[in-house]
Amino acid sequence: MTNKRSLKFGAIIHGVGGSVTGWRHPEVLSDASVNFDFYKRQAQTAEEGKFDLVFIADGLYINEKSIPHFLNRFEPLTILSALAAVTSKIGLVGTLSTSYSEPFTVARQFASLDKISGGRAGWNVVTSPLEGTARNHNIRSHPAHADRYKIAEEHLDVVRGLWDSWEDDAFVRDKESGVFFDPEKLHRLDHKGEHFSVEGPLNIDRSPQGQPVVFQAGSSEDGKSLAARSADAVFTGHERLEDAQAFYKDVKDRAVANGRQPQDVAILPGINPIVGRTREEAEARYEEIASLVTIEKALEYLGRFFDHHDFSQYPLDEAFPDLGDLGSNAFKSGTDKIKRDAKEQGLTLRQVALRSATPKTTFIGTAEDVADRIQEWFESEGADGFIIHTDIPSGLRNFVDQVVPILQERGLYRLDYEADTLRGNLGVPIPENRYTAQRRGEASVPNSVESATAN
Amino acid sequence: MTNKRSLKFGAIIHGVGGSVTGWRHPEVLSDASVNFDFYKRQAQTAEEGKFDLVFIADGLYINEKSIPHFLNRFEPLTILSALAAVTSKIGLVGTLSTSYSEPFTVARQFASLDKISGGRAGWNVVTSPLEGTARNHNIRSHPAHADRYKIAEEHLDVVRGLWDSWEDDAFVRDKESGVFFDPEKLHRLDHKGEHFSVEGPLNIDRSPQGQPVVFQAGSSEDGKSLAARSADAVFTGHERLEDAQAFYKDVKDRAVANGRQPQDVAILPGINPIVGRTREEAEARYEEIASLVTIEKALEYLGRFFDHHDFSQYPLDEAFPDLGDLGSNAFKSGTDKIKRDAKEQGLTLRQVALRSATPKTTFIGTAEDVADRIQEWFESEGADGFIIHTDIPSGLRNFVDQVVPILQERGLYRLDYEADTLRGNLGVPIPENRYTAQRRGEASVPNSVESATAN
Repeated sequence: MTNKRSLKFGAIIHGVGGSVTGWRHPEVLSDASVNFDFYKRQAQTAEEGKFDLVFIADGLYINEKSIPHFLNRFEPLTILSALAAVTSKIGLVGTLSTSYSEPFTVARQFASLDKISGGRAGWNVVTSPLEGTARNHNIRSHPAHADRYKIAEEHLDVVRGLWDSWEDDAFVRDKESGVFFDPEKLHRLDHKGEHFSVEGPLNIDRSPQGQPVVFQAGSSEDGKSLAARSADAVFTGHERLEDAQAFYKDVKDRAVANGRQPQDVAILPGINPIVGRTREEAEARYEEIASLVTIEKALEYLGRFFDHHDFSQYPLDEAFPDLGDLGSNAFKSGTDKIKRDAKEQGLTLRQVALRSATPKTTFIGTAEDVADRIQEWFESEGADGFIIHTDIPSGLRNFVDQVVPILQERGLYRLDYEADTLRGNLGVPIPENRYTAQRRGEASVPNSVESATAN
Repeated sequence: MTNKRSLKFGAIIHGVGGSVTGWRHPEVLSDASVNFDFYKRQAQTAEEGKFDLVFIADGLYINEKSIPHFLNRFEPLTILSALAAVTSKIGLVGTLSTSYSEPFTVARQFASLDKISGGRAGWNVVTSPLEGTARNHNIRSHPAHADRYKIAEEHLDVVRGLWDSWEDDAFVRDKESGVFFDPEKLHRLDHKGEHFSVEGPLNIDRSPQGQPVVFQAGSSEDGKSLAARSADAVFTGHERLEDAQAFYKDVKDRAVANGRQPQDVAILPGINPIVGRTREEAEARYEEIASLVTIEKALEYLGRFFDHHDFSQYPLDEAFPDLGDLGSNAFKSGTDKIKRDAKEQGLTLRQVALRSATPKTTFIGTAEDVADRIQEWFESEGADGFIIHTDIPSGLRNFVDQVVPILQERGLYRLDYEADTLRGNLGVPIPENRYTAQRRGEASVPNSVESATAN
């Protein structure tokens, strides 16, 4: 790490929120998940706060027990494209599954978002944990966890290959001579692999940031391997600093073992900061949200992580039930942790359910408190920055107005954007076009050739 | 037809243009196909002209002989979503293939565009003529023409089914009682067909226009059947009024045979109007564009319709070669017509190639001339309106500034938008939710229940 290291921030925009009952809060617009004006305001607030990016999470299967936001929400590529037109600097990162999509389509839609936004797109690569997803799609049956990651690796390779179809100077566009492009700089991928056969070329060229930024959001062993090999940034989640530090070191070490620099992959835990004028006010804000949760809704929410398992069949105030392997093919790292914590801490089902429905954040207190905590995690290598999610819309506003200026004063956070591209702001390298690299007689190393910090 | 019938207009936005060499025109921005500001300006110009819609065409396979615009262009859903954020009334219609996509993804992305835009989305259903497309995708090998249309019918049925997953009043959002939605008004499709199995429900609800408008753009027998059964609008192309009238009558008759009203499907031929202050100026504008075409480029362009057949192998000034069945699995109605015209009119290869590269429009002359021609086609039932494409950006500007006011003065065209939705402006009906219709004890007729003209 150099001393130029500076904090990065992303904002998850998620309508009525990621919780079961948060939509009932008086301040929440109950149609926020399908309200474009709401998304636009949140994105513009994050841009005011010089955030690196907004983040749109996703899912491809619902049933009547899904949480409100999941039932009825915008699709990531369409909402991010709309936000591209009403913002100018902030990155636009969206989740899309490699298990149920065509690499050609994915490459093209993200490349198009990247061109529309002038180099601000990012793809959060996920593998779709829920088995029901397969019943909504025809491409394949639901693969096991390890297979999903093999498919993801190959899918991502194909997408990145397609993104390099055109070298950066391929389009000559000389009206005088009539030469539109240089055919030497157009490349067919001709990929034939275990899961995908894709000829190419892609019908769109690279943006000013070379390729969209690749995020990875799973924290399982397979997820960490994928991140260390291929991702530019990792969206993770930890309650305790020591867990965050262990994860941070693990992923950076794996990246180095893959021949990359530690700074080539940014580690960004998700946090839910709650800021008050006093600590008491902040606590009261948390209680106001937590009090909205009923035990029935909490059990439903918990069930979602275990492939919609019905937890209402167990006694509430006895030890958390033994679930065997249940959940290991879905949100693996999450369900492993729930089982482990329940056992180690001797929790009842009621306690586990309420905790997972409204986990108590440690990023709570006055703006100074929250800034201190952020600084601690950042300086002790628990994080390169954070993805902020807030239960109520004013949470983001308060963070931008109150916490950001403190971090700026302390010299930890930018006063203005360094670049017009997401890579430029995140400080992750622009991958040189693989064919241009080959032409120069070098090995094709798609991910660590040029620095993106100079814009 | 009632006497309330009024002209409809769409504008194709296609960057450097749909021709081989149009990009060399001094007025054309040579990067227009990937220039968001250009798309934004054109969409806003069309909205100034009170156009019903902008239209983004598409393709999923290129090679080094593809025309410039096809090599490097925005993907329809992303660019339309971006345009949604910078327009407020105009419809947003994009091409997407049923042969290489998942119905769940298509349903969701168009529904999301529809919600973002407040009910302005349209889907132009195509089946992908080019065989190379299959080599870029993994879902299936390239189906024959008739099979592609069977797949399209089923795909569209699934998409429309998913669009009805939520009845219009399903989301209660009552903070007091904690009821977010009424589970009785959530419906799983449970489709199991020959080509697709899709469970549902979709994770987004209907927009103010009920469902995105469905366009159909093929003019083959299969295409016309699909349009008559399922489409809200048809994008077609005819050089001569009598051909347009025959097509118009044919599709409307077929719609009636399917139990629909003639006005349920709008017939919109594509035209390329060229307006000058005098007829001579208009002719000079055409010549300026036509003179950019070389015979080599014209042969390449012709080849594209015949699955990239190499026409340079034939003598230029002898009769158009006998190609047998070639082209019948790709752009079938187009290639049939080229072969027929060549034979009937005794054309050489050179003549056929130059004609198809820059067809001479009959919508040329002064603004009065062009308005006369439009009125003639409209009043004699050759068209319900037109999709305007122009080789140079000022073509659209001139049409809006000079031709539109004449049509308005003549009472043929709106002075302002009638509605905020695409269905409302096009005057095609809002399909009642099929489950709501069932609940009322009626048959599920997804396409002709309520009128959309009242907004």
